[in-house]
Amino acid sequence: MSSDQPLLLAGCWQPSMDATNVFRAEDPQQGVAIGPEFPVSGQIDLEAALAAGQEAAAELSAASPAQVADFLATYADALAGDAETLSNLAHAETALPKTPRLVQVELPRTVGQLREAAQAVRACSWTHPVIDTEAGLRSHLAPLGKPVLVMGPNNFPFAFNAVAGSDFASAIAARNPVIAKGHPSHPATTRRMAELAHHALATAGLPAGTLQLLYHFDHALGQRVAADRRLGAIAFTGSRQAGLALKAAADPAGVPVFAELSSLNPVFLLPGALAERGGDIANEFASSCMLGSGQFCTNPGLVVAPRGRHGDDFVDQASQLFGQADPMVLFSRGVLDELEASVEQLRAAGASLICGGHSGTPGYRFVPTLMSVDGERFLADSEQLQAEAFGPVSLLVRVSDMEQALAIAEVLEGNLTAAIYRGGDGADDDHWKKLAARLRPRVGRLINSHMPTGVAVSAAQNHGGPYPSTTSVHHTAVGMPAAITRFAALHCYDDVADDLLPVELRDRNPGGVQRLIDGHWTTADIEPRR
Amino acid sequence: MSSDQPLLLAGCWQPSMDATNVFRAEDPQQGVAIGPEFPVSGQIDLEAALAAGQEAAAELSAASPAQVADFLATYADALAGDAETLSNLAHAETALPKTPRLVQVELPRTVGQLREAAQAVRACSWTHPVIDTEAGLRSHLAPLGKPVLVMGPNNFPFAFNAVAGSDFASAIAARNPVIAKGHPSHPATTRRMAELAHHALATAGLPAGTLQLLYHFDHALGQRVAADRRLGAIAFTGSRQAGLALKAAADPAGVPVFAELSSLNPVFLLPGALAERGGDIANEFASSCMLGSGQFCTNPGLVVAPRGRHGDDFVDQASQLFGQADPMVLFSRGVLDELEASVEQLRAAGASLICGGHSGTPGYRFVPTLMSVDGERFLADSEQLQAEAFGPVSLLVRVSDMEQALAIAEVLEGNLTAAIYRGGDGADDDHWKKLAARLRPRVGRLINSHMPTGVAVSAAQNHGGPYPSTTSVHHTAVGMPAAITRFAALHCYDDVADDLLPVELRDRNPGGVQRLIDGHWTTADIEPRR
Repeated sequence: MSSDQPLLLAGCWQPSMDATNVFRAEDPQQGVAIGPEFPVSGQIDLEAALAAGQEAAAELSAASPAQVADFLATYADALAGDAETLSNLAHAETALPKTPRLVQVELPRTVGQLREAAQAVRACSWTHPVIDTEAGLRSHLAPLGKPVLVMGPNNFPFAFNAVAGSDFASAIAARNPVIAKGHPSHPATTRRMAELAHHALATAGLPAGTLQLLYHFDHALGQRVAADRRLGAIAFTGSRQAGLALKAAADPAGVPVFAELSSLNPVFLLPGALAERGGDIANEFASSCMLGSGQFCTNPGLVVAPRGRHGDDFVDQASQLFGQADPMVLFSRGVLDELEASVEQLRAAGASLICGGHSGTPGYRFVPTLMSVDGERFLADSEQLQAEAFGPVSLLVRVSDMEQALAIAEVLEGNLTAAIYRGGDGADDDHWKKLAARLRPRVGRLINSHMPTGVAVSAAQNHGGPYPSTTSVHHTAVGMPAAITRFAALHCYDDVADDLLPVELRDRNPGGVQRLIDGHWTTADIEPRR
Repeated sequence: MSSDQPLLLAGCWQPSMDATNVFRAEDPQQGVAIGPEFPVSGQIDLEAALAAGQEAAAELSAASPAQVADFLATYADALAGDAETLSNLAHAETALPKTPRLVQVELPRTVGQLREAAQAVRACSWTHPVIDTEAGLRSHLAPLGKPVLVMGPNNFPFAFNAVAGSDFASAIAARNPVIAKGHPSHPATTRRMAELAHHALATAGLPAGTLQLLYHFDHALGQRVAADRRLGAIAFTGSRQAGLALKAAADPAGVPVFAELSSLNPVFLLPGALAERGGDIANEFASSCMLGSGQFCTNPGLVVAPRGRHGDDFVDQASQLFGQADPMVLFSRGVLDELEASVEQLRAAGASLICGGHSGTPGYRFVPTLMSVDGERFLADSEQLQAEAFGPVSLLVRVSDMEQALAIAEVLEGNLTAAIYRGGDGADDDHWKKLAARLRPRVGRLINSHMPTGVAVSAAQNHGGPYPSTTSVHHTAVGMPAAITRFAALHCYDDVADDLLPVELRDRNPGGVQRLIDGHWTTADIEPRR
């Protein structure tokens, strides 16, 4: 198969060596192919990427933090300066609106994230230096010494793109080269970003092999690569099925997989909150669930509301808002097919349709959909009724009392988030505490009285959660410097002379790095040893 | 099968409900069974432990850090006060010398480790609170909310015991209950320690189900339990084969396994160091390799020495020291069998015996053994020649030059440690740097000019390393507070009112916890929000 769209391999833009197929992006609004043909890579392309990634890893490990920070900052500037072209490409390939989404929200977020990564690199804030002067031991987090395979999702063409998002920024910040697999739904966007990254690498004087890009390869090849011990780690954001297949392949080889998978993001509405401002909450819920056609990992997919008047009012108002909305464009035929299957699965398990439930035309559209089920029924078939429906769909669970809400909290799988809405007069507070105690071990981020969408990039963020929402309950995928530590190894130096140590572990600390020395955080120097 | 030795299940000492067999400890010096019969547990015992562990997890998560610290400190005192009985039991079951090993080294280490865990709990130093006042996000590390299965090894009856060692102390410090599987080679020691722990739990007012103890269960049952999602994590120290089988079972269920497996701990001797003090190094090497009959995970199992006069002198002196030593007692028939098989595997791959290589009598003994192989041969069959020989055995690799030493460094698997000996005059320093660059990504602790045995319990320690030496390159198994973080989940609170937050994330900080607030480490309070 031939395609004129080059891969970025071993530092050069070059044609695929063994494309097994070609593919094109689609305009999801019309369901028609657009743009050039891109290659689907085979084993030879991947082998070349792995070999070059090994070489780049050794070079990049030895690069100075200043160079890495320069690259991240230069690349961020280049992206910010290319907003018009990037947003045109991304809009055509994803149908996400240019404004506000792509230009005012997602690109600034992406740029800001790269700048925060640069800052974390300059400050060495991700390396957590720990020094025990008496024992002669000095430890810090350090590069893996191997490339990281980053596989991007469909739903953030910029902010989670394999060549620009948080996984990319994190892996590079820890001085590991990235082998990126772009998502096939937005290849031209990805290529454009990778070109800017490639230039920025040259400007910063980093190895050109620091970033390699393949547009697509099939699942079977992905699983073979995942089991390759030349990889230091894999970062994946996408469906539970694909992510777990990748993990199953990588696990026996000891390759860590940081996968962000599915999440229902349950929202519990307490009686006081509904009595006080049920209408506002219905508005917040409808906006959150329909934002970006509901294609967010933090979409509120499950809402637990009490029976009775205030609960009924909330459901009525939410139903009106959902019922008035036009069919919404999804990213692809695949997303539409999976959404239809999920809605069918929920119906088969006993959920009833309040509104929506069908596709629309032209292109790949689905009508915003509300479903409902009784608490008893949910508890009777909680596994089937926790199917994620990726799109503008949510399941309302109507509960008879607080005991039933607590019982539901106890059967929930691991999720990224849970939210509890409570009233302002304190009457809900005891319920809040009981629910929070049940939900806390099941989620990464526990939210008070707002919807889960809108993930702030912050050092205190946790965009992560217990299995199966992610594959590591210890780590966040968003927020510097914590996200960087996923791609780092703990390195200890035992009785090593000062001039043979990494700079940040030496006695003198001219960079003012925060270090934990003999139990105290300090930026001070260490008195030279006798 | 009946046995009068009770299990510690669900807070009570009680007989096994479904023992499938019984076993007794052995005196390894004579190879004869000693002490009472202990039960081999079946599925019913394990199910009871899992169910009770779930309950204890919810209670323990809500316990105060002060109570947990009190327990750890009280238990430490109880162990220290029971040195005579404990060391008698452990000596009988392991043949490790009472002095200095058991009484002066290992018990104080165990006690000190529990006290350091208590201190980390009091200071909240393992929870790493991060607060972003503007975004309204507050995160910290928190209990898993599930029990941790801890499986102890044969080689440290106190310091890595499943009811008292670092894994135990770490899991409890993070407020997770422990389901302990003692090692079947020292059941009476384990039972005695668990009795002291059980009393200390009552004294501190913690749930009695915080510690449960089973003495033994078979591999098949272990693997079935490892796949149980009611477990928050598994800690394992032992053989590569058993550890990887456990990991393979746990991985598909998303249960994290922190396993410490095999390590060769390569030692590279640079020419200047050998010229300067080859005799001293031979002494250090022989002592390190024969300490504890060589049954340490940090035993120097591979020594890379140059050909030529200084290298020959080193080998001659080491050979004399090994050759003069008596046969050494191993822990069990199993350890002896595996050691014989490993030595045979090394011989089959081309290593030749310098001295030793056979077992001795009575009981389970093996003669300290040195083997040798040329660098060329090692590189030709590096996989077979990296077989771990657990016991007083080391393989010398004689290299022609520095290039060959570097090539060997590049084919090494992941190890806990590597050591490089260099001369004091600076002539070795360039070699040191080149070797260190190759070894660094392959090991957890890089040691300058001393042997790898003797793992200090320190906040700056890394007793960990890349796969397959352990299953997590991010974490250490020894050293507080870092070891505790293995058994913690990242919890974020989003816009949660001050009085609904965990104490250490509230505005006021009366405990003086070190917190990262808006990018700065501080023990200060936060000004209340408007």
